Amino acid sequence: MSAVPTIAAIDWGTTRLRVWLLDAGGAVVDERRSDEGLLTAQHKGFATVLDRHLRDMAAPENLPAIVCGMAGARQGWVEAPYVEVPASLGDILGSAVSVPGVGRDIRIVPGLAQRNPRAPDVMRGEETQLAGITKLIGSGSHLVCMPGTHSKWVIAEGGAIQGFGTWPTGEMFSVLSQHSILRHSIGDKPAAVSPDSQVFRDWCQEALFDGDIGARLFSIRAAGLLSGLGQDDAAAALSGLLIGAEVASAIRRFARREAPVVLVVSGALGALYAEAMRLDGIAVTIADADEAVLAGLVAAARRNGMLAEGMVK
Amino acid sequence: MSAVPTIAAIDWGTTRLRVWLLDAGGAVVDERRSDEGLLTAQHKGFATVLDRHLRDMAAPENLPAIVCGMAGARQGWVEAPYVEVPASLGDILGSAVSVPGVGRDIRIVPGLAQRNPRAPDVMRGEETQLAGITKLIGSGSHLVCMPGTHSKWVIAEGGAIQGFGTWPTGEMFSVLSQHSILRHSIGDKPAAVSPDSQVFRDWCQEALFDGDIGARLFSIRAAGLLSGLGQDDAAAALSGLLIGAEVASAIRRFARREAPVVLVVSGALGALYAEAMRLDGIAVTIADADEAVLAGLVAAARRNGMLAEGMVK
Repeated sequence: MSAVPTIAAIDWGTTRLRVWLLDAGGAVVDERRSDEGLLTAQHKGFATVLDRHLRDMAAPENLPAIVCGMAGARQGWVEAPYVEVPASLGDILGSAVSVPGVGRDIRIVPGLAQRNPRAPDVMRGEETQLAGITKLIGSGSHLVCMPGTHSKWVIAEGGAIQGFGTWPTGEMFSVLSQHSILRHSIGDKPAAVSPDSQVFRDWCQEALFDGDIGARLFSIRAAGLLSGLGQDDAAAALSGLLIGAEVASAIRRFARREAPVVLVVSGALGALYAEAMRLDGIAVTIADADEAVLAGLVAAARRNGMLAEGMVK
Repeated sequence: MSAVPTIAAIDWGTTRLRVWLLDAGGAVVDERRSDEGLLTAQHKGFATVLDRHLRDMAAPENLPAIVCGMAGARQGWVEAPYVEVPASLGDILGSAVSVPGVGRDIRIVPGLAQRNPRAPDVMRGEETQLAGITKLIGSGSHLVCMPGTHSKWVIAEGGAIQGFGTWPTGEMFSVLSQHSILRHSIGDKPAAVSPDSQVFRDWCQEALFDGDIGARLFSIRAAGLLSGLGQDDAAAALSGLLIGAEVASAIRRFARREAPVVLVVSGALGALYAEAMRLDGIAVTIADADEAVLAGLVAAARRNGMLAEGMVK
C-alpha cells in the first residue's frame, strides 16, 4: 500500500464482492475481489465477511465504508429502501442508509424502484454506476444500456433518472442453454461468442427487426437437425437472438435519443452489444462498468460527507 | 374387449406412449397410456416396449401397427425422413416408413421439415393430428394453432401444409419458473393457472400488444417485491405473458385468415389459449388433440392399405 486509506468502497452484488481502499482524494490505494456475494454473506454474516477482507488489507479498524448493491436489499445486510423514480442522482446518493451497531461508519446506497403498474421494476447497484458517469449523462437527455445477467436500460434527463427497464438477457442465455431443448444444440461447453461470428450477426440482425424471441428459439434446434449448425454456432445464434431482441425491444420502448446510447459495460460482453448496436445503426459511447461503479461510490462518499467534496480523483 | 382388433395405432412422443387397438372400421376396441416415451424406449428397446403393451392387451402376435411421433426421429426406432413442406396431407401419410426385422407390419409416419433458411423448423406427431382434422382444414385456407411444450402454428391450404412455426411456450414456462430468478416469485408448487384469473388476462393483454417477452419477464419479479404479487398470481402472469406473446407473434408472422383459427388442443391448456384468442378478438374453432391424432392414425393406416378405405369410423 502506497498511502493510508480514508474510506473503503464496496460493490456487493448477488454473487461477488469488490472492495477498494481509497485515499482522501478518492484514488485507489488497494483493491480485492471475492466471490462472497449476497448469497455467501447471508450465511457467514455481512460484518464478518467485510471485517475479514478489510483486516486482510491492513485497513484501520474504524475505517468508514460506502457500499452499493444487494447488501441493501431486504434479504441483505440492512435494507436501504428503494428511492422512487424520477429521482436526481444527488438525491439517490443522499439517501444512503447507515448500518447500526458496527464498529465503523458504514452507509449503503439505496436501489431504485419504478412503481409504474404497467412496468414495475427495480435495480440495485446500477444506480451507483449511473452516478459514476455524470460527465456523460449529468445534463441533456440520454438512453443508457447496462448489459448483464439482468440488463438495465435507463432514461436520464438533466441528471435525473426518469425511468428504466430490465431485460434478463444473460439469465435467459444461461437458463435456455442449460435447461431447455437447446442444451442438445449447444452442449456443455460452448466457446465464448465472438462479435465477429457471422452466425451471431445473422441471428442478431433478424431479432433486431422485430424483437421476437419466441418465434425463433426453436429454429436454433431445427438448424442443428436440418443443416448441421454446430454447438459453438448454436451458442452464437442464441446470443445474437437474445441481444438483438433486447436492443430492438428497448429501443422500441424508450425511442432513440439524439445523443448516442451510453453503453456501460466491462469485458467481452461489451463487444457483443457494441456489434448489435452497430448492426442497428445506433451510435454508442462506451463507459467501463467497473470504473463507473467505483466513481459512483466515490461520489456517494462525497455526497454523504465521508470524503471531502471538490477533491479531484 | 368387444371385438378382434385389425390394427394398433400408436402415438409415441418424447415422454409418453399411447396405444389404441382398432377394429376393421377404425373404431377403438381398447386403449392404454404409458410414460414409456422416446427417452424410456431408447433404453428398453422400442420393439420390447411395444410388444409387451400389445401382449398385455391380448392383441394377436402379428397385429400390424401404425405409429407417429418421435419413434420416427433419427434417435428413435427407425428414422422416417422428414417430408418437406409444402406437402399434401395425403403425400405425408403415404411416406410412412416400414420397420424391418420385426414380427409384424409396422409403419411410422414421417415428420415435416421446413428448410427455409430464415425459419428452419421441424415437427413430428403434429402432422398426424393435422391429418385427423381434414374435415376442418381439408379445403380452403386455415391457420392452425397446436399449443404445447413446443406449440406449432401451421398454414394449411387446400389440404396441403404450406408452412409452420414453433413457439416453445410450454418449455419456457417450465424452464423460467424453475431455473430463473422467477422461481423466487413462483415457488415450487404454483396452482394451475385459470383463464378466469384477472392477472392472467392482464399480462396476456399486455403481451398481445407487441409480443414482447424480454421486456416484461423481470417485471413479474419486481411486482412481487413492490406490490406483493403472490406465487399463484406470478405463475398466472408468466403464463399470460408467454401465451399472449406467442399469439401476437404467430398472428404477426402468418397474418390472420378469414376463417377462424383452428385450435387443436386437449385439457386445461385449451381454455388458456381460447381466452388469449378471445382477448385478441380472434375467432376460434376448437378440435380435441387426442381425437385428432387418433383420426390421423386411422387415415394413415388407410392411406397405407392397412385398413380398408371408405369404411367410416
